[in-house]
Amino acid sequence: MIWQPHPQLLIMTFPGVPSELYPMWQEVAAPWLGQQGYVTHTLHSRVLLYWGIAESALAEKVQSYFQLQNPTVAPYADYGQCRLRITAKAPTPEAAKALIAPVEAEIRALTTPHCYGVDHDTLPGVVATALRSRQQTLAIAESCTGGWLGQMLTSIPGSSQFLIGGVIAYSNGVKQSLLGVSESTLATYGAVSAETACEMASGVKQRLGSDWGIAITGIAGPDGGSDAKPVGLVYGAIADPEGTTVAYRQCWNPSRGRDWIRQVSSCSALDHLRQRFVIFSETKA
Amino acid sequence: MIWQPHPQLLIMTFPGVPSELYPMWQEVAAPWLGQQGYVTHTLHSRVLLYWGIAESALAEKVQSYFQLQNPTVAPYADYGQCRLRITAKAPTPEAAKALIAPVEAEIRALTTPHCYGVDHDTLPGVVATALRSRQQTLAIAESCTGGWLGQMLTSIPGSSQFLIGGVIAYSNGVKQSLLGVSESTLATYGAVSAETACEMASGVKQRLGSDWGIAITGIAGPDGGSDAKPVGLVYGAIADPEGTTVAYRQCWNPSRGRDWIRQVSSCSALDHLRQRFVIFSETKA
Repeated sequence: MIWQPHPQLLIMTFPGVPSELYPMWQEVAAPWLGQQGYVTHTLHSRVLLYWGIAESALAEKVQSYFQLQNPTVAPYADYGQCRLRITAKAPTPEAAKALIAPVEAEIRALTTPHCYGVDHDTLPGVVATALRSRQQTLAIAESCTGGWLGQMLTSIPGSSQFLIGGVIAYSNGVKQSLLGVSESTLATYGAVSAETACEMASGVKQRLGSDWGIAITGIAGPDGGSDAKPVGLVYGAIADPEGTTVAYRQCWNPSRGRDWIRQVSSCSALDHLRQRFVIFSETKA
Repeated sequence: MIWQPHPQLLIMTFPGVPSELYPMWQEVAAPWLGQQGYVTHTLHSRVLLYWGIAESALAEKVQSYFQLQNPTVAPYADYGQCRLRITAKAPTPEAAKALIAPVEAEIRALTTPHCYGVDHDTLPGVVATALRSRQQTLAIAESCTGGWLGQMLTSIPGSSQFLIGGVIAYSNGVKQSLLGVSESTLATYGAVSAETACEMASGVKQRLGSDWGIAITGIAGPDGGSDAKPVGLVYGAIADPEGTTVAYRQCWNPSRGRDWIRQVSSCSALDHLRQRFVIFSETKA
């Protein structure tokens, strides 16, 4: 309800339920206030999303921007990911966007390749969009994440266009029988190793006939760790369309628990794939 | 802080953060109030958890219990699951539990086999406990759930004891190559059918060498539905250790969205497995 019983008094009432309040504000109240001349300036924000870089390391790269007055630049950290919010104040949204654009471009150049998207982008969404535009397919092999990565990718409607399928290779037997990991690799390096991750990624790509393969193998805990291979140790691998497979190693903080390790390992695999897309395009170009 | 400046005035202060408040109340404040003689009775609750039955159907079975004064019985519904809370008031927790026990036993007898657990039990936890006590293993084949079921099961620490692995069989090619679903089954009945679900469940059990197999195949939407096979149609199948495979068919409400359909389909598969355990034990005994 919008009620102005007197020129000096304006009353606007809203329901308390956020899902009802937000659209009413956005679709009715804010435009109405603008039409009535109450709005003299607008705030507009753009959020840059980062994976694979600590908040402190990100802040160091862009520190000088934190002094800006308009737009302002502020860092935020979630579990695993960081965000930079660029906010401008201007008479119109267009003018605010024009203030933001050059700062965004400079910050992006300084923080390549860690910026994976903006605003409401997600890692699975960014990877899905890239695979679709390349008309390429993906297959995944998960050990410690046990389906988490698959669940994230298949949350995207139409994911069957790019995801052929996957293998939850929890036991060594499945790693051998369905992915073709060799017995000697498992015996020599163990299930949690760069070598096994590589054979899982290339195996799932080959057996499912996809362009790309992702593999994750690690120790999510709370048990199963050792001095040499502690809880939180995760190996991933990305197999690319030309037959190259690259492995990476991560040591997550075990104190954050089993499901956190599984979640960040899944996100991180998507970010590694995203970065391989960039590298792969540059090499090919 | 507990402060009694005057016999008629007692002040207890707590932090507002729930994770700090709860243990302070439970470990310090409540016992202190008991010692001081402020507590003349106690409330104790037991929550029975249900899957695969609508709140209205559950309420009909136990309607007469809603009239009880002590203990009271009240129904609650979440997405997909229902709960019955039995609450008793008595001088001691033991006396409250004694009031609850016979009512719980009667309600359980009336609501078999839908009650899957109590209090903080979860469907994956109940299935994990059953598999461990039977010393049996499980393998899973997921199409529309795309890893959700695997992610739920592998959230349980030590799940490698009972979960051998799984296949995310998103494309028909993977259903054939990794699970052995026949081309004629797919051509005749389609990927979303009881026949395909059965071949997926028995295939994953056989190829991964597990005692039990679960399969899920369906249309999670928002696209891909038809008049004959609408969004929300899901087939599941359970393959048991003696070679029998049983399929089931579900039509979920598509308006709740893709991820809801995927989540309840995963939970439902676990509940079907749980119910097969019961039937299987009774048949064998």
